[in-house]
Amino acid sequence: MRARAPGSTSNIGPGFDVLGLALDIHVEVEVVDAARLAVRTEGEGEDLPQDATHLAARIAAAVRGHDRLAVTVRSEIPVGRGLGSSAALAAAAAAAAGSLDPLGVATRFDGHGENAAASVVGGLVAAPIVAGAPVVRRLPLDPRLAFVVLVPDRHLPTSQARAALPATVPFDDAVANLGRLVLLVSGLADAESLQRVAGEDRLHQGARTALFPEAPELLRRLEDAGAVVACWSGAGPSLLAICRSRDDAPRVRDAGELALGELGVTGRAIELLPDLVGLTVSG
Amino acid sequence: MRARAPGSTSNIGPGFDVLGLALDIHVEVEVVDAARLAVRTEGEGEDLPQDATHLAARIAAAVRGHDRLAVTVRSEIPVGRGLGSSAALAAAAAAAAGSLDPLGVATRFDGHGENAAASVVGGLVAAPIVAGAPVVRRLPLDPRLAFVVLVPDRHLPTSQARAALPATVPFDDAVANLGRLVLLVSGLADAESLQRVAGEDRLHQGARTALFPEAPELLRRLEDAGAVVACWSGAGPSLLAICRSRDDAPRVRDAGELALGELGVTGRAIELLPDLVGLTVSG
Repeated sequence: MRARAPGSTSNIGPGFDVLGLALDIHVEVEVVDAARLAVRTEGEGEDLPQDATHLAARIAAAVRGHDRLAVTVRSEIPVGRGLGSSAALAAAAAAAAGSLDPLGVATRFDGHGENAAASVVGGLVAAPIVAGAPVVRRLPLDPRLAFVVLVPDRHLPTSQARAALPATVPFDDAVANLGRLVLLVSGLADAESLQRVAGEDRLHQGARTALFPEAPELLRRLEDAGAVVACWSGAGPSLLAICRSRDDAPRVRDAGELALGELGVTGRAIELLPDLVGLTVSG
Repeated sequence: MRARAPGSTSNIGPGFDVLGLALDIHVEVEVVDAARLAVRTEGEGEDLPQDATHLAARIAAAVRGHDRLAVTVRSEIPVGRGLGSSAALAAAAAAAAGSLDPLGVATRFDGHGENAAASVVGGLVAAPIVAGAPVVRRLPLDPRLAFVVLVPDRHLPTSQARAALPATVPFDDAVANLGRLVLLVSGLADAESLQRVAGEDRLHQGARTALFPEAPELLRRLEDAGAVVACWSGAGPSLLAICRSRDDAPRVRDAGELALGELGVTGRAIELLPDLVGLTVSG
């Protein structure tokens, strides 16, 4: 069987470990019976070892109960950049192997509940982890919104980004994120009401800036070019810009590409629309 | 002129300092020119000094620029119980005195932006304070929801409830509230998706329990009787129960009244529907 899942951005400003948004950039996994395990990968992530340690192989084997499988992965999703590549891969691999609960499998193997939920459900989701499992809610998303992602050519392992987080935060910062998160969810449902303040975060971005010192300046440039909100994508190092309309996106993309160059950050800027379909499986 | 504003519940589980919900319980303020200041109050709060120190008199005088006014207040909103009585009074007084910005005046005098926003706009609102002023968004509210409020016969000054809050909180608690807040906003828009976990709070209720030790048991009884969510109303001591339908509310109300009696907390339990109108002004 074959399954296809979109990558995703997550966190989104104040929405740390809560929000996920599926993007129109995909991974496809095919799993068929074979004499012995064979793993073949194309596109993004093709430099990863093509053996039993590959996430798609581990998941397919776990779902099937054996590893006499040929697993083929074709991916457009940059790996380790905060675009939910592993969650999308995990969901697609689980579905291609025949799992009836690809979200559960992906969350168990990958741990990023909000990315996995976005990859499976599509669109904008809230998926906080409660008692070990994501509680998923699809949230309204204004179709006028457009997105630009800056994808630096550097890896920032989530484990390292997690380790940068503080054990405690000021009470006022916790409350500030609460308020902004509701403004953000409201603004993503209605582009006209989306304001810059809705994208402010005081929980994780500041603590992670040491891992990507150019981030604040890049975010500022995206906003100056017309993005309403600019924030980290997932645990970075990709950065997300939210534009109130598709007319604004090319200018923001160009400014992002220019800024990457001027700051000496190798990488690219891409316009992406949301994926509203999520995981699909074909015979 | 005469103005009428609803009281409100605020915070609502994880929504500390963010959410406000107008309730069908009102204060009316009349302001007319007079030879000298005269303050007359009826109903709830009639034990407060009827002089220039009364909040309605201070606001009316500030709006008009003099105090040659007769100010009449008729209130159904219990004072100092976490039902936004002062925000509602402030908004109504400002409007009755002719202010064109009753929300701004109420927030300046009273400080509770989310209560003031609910009183002015009606319904469910988010109104986080940003740079000193509330940013108000009306949020969808499922008309099937019903509300029960337990109103103990004791005051719990907001200043005291504020002083009980910690300066810092665990990072994980801040994140837990973020996730639950989105589930709550989503569940208040669609009663069928509202779950108990959406009402969980880790920021303020625990820290305030010492000020109202019976609260956890009362909240438990409300949930056992059929409330989906039970939480503090504002800074307390009132408690709020959210029921998925009006059919559930009488049973929850009765259980709340019984629990108050059994725990030796003098007070009452009342069913309240939301007020969807907010502030009204008449000639």
